[in-house]
Amino acid sequence: MILVRHEIGDVLRDVRLQKGRTLRQVASKASVALGYLSEVERGQKEASSEILAAVADALDTPISTIMGEVAHRLGELEQITAIGTMTSPVIPDTVPDELLADFANTGK
Amino acid sequence: MILVRHEIGDVLRDVRLQKGRTLRQVASKASVALGYLSEVERGQKEASSEILAAVADALDTPISTIMGEVAHRLGELEQITAIGTMTSPVIPDTVPDELLADFANTGK
Repeated sequence: MILVRHEIGDVLRDVRLQKGRTLRQVASKASVALGYLSEVERGQKEASSEILAAVADALDTPISTIMGEVAHRLGELEQITAIGTMTSPVIPDTVPDELLADFANTGK
Repeated sequence: MILVRHEIGDVLRDVRLQKGRTLRQVASKASVALGYLSEVERGQKEASSEILAAVADALDTPISTIMGEVAHRLGELEQITAIGTMTSPVIPDTVPDELLADFANTGK
């Protein structure tokens, strides 16, 4: 199952690293506990909308930008999952005699 | 403060209405309590990622599509908020004498 919090966590961490901020700096600026923010980044805890707004603000990044990137990554995951669940082409255990005969003829 | 859950609720309700489904139908298919889904749609309750995935599935809509629309609406709200907090152009209480003289001359 594709879970939104995993992508939110990844995006928050990626934005933070892009901006060269430490977990401690962002947690402090957003007034959230360092351990809590760490769990959110690892996709282990759901962040409330208030926490998301505070963290986005601490990262100087609009929440729309963060959620846009989350939506983009969810779309990529859905494509990968869709490919994974496609039915494989059926390869028969036994090859019909006609085909074997054709193959034999081709070699001549 | 712009809150993600308000937009998530609005988008879930809009998608449900577009598809002509009742709250009861979607709640039942997603195996969530009707009152809970109603609170999520009204932006009063945070939906966990598991609930979001189940509701999106019940609406036959990829979660990436829902979150993409949420991001779009958050962006629109941010623009409205930004316009609301812009400093108004300063209109002086008194008009300088030179300008009044110019205005008087223009009329001639």
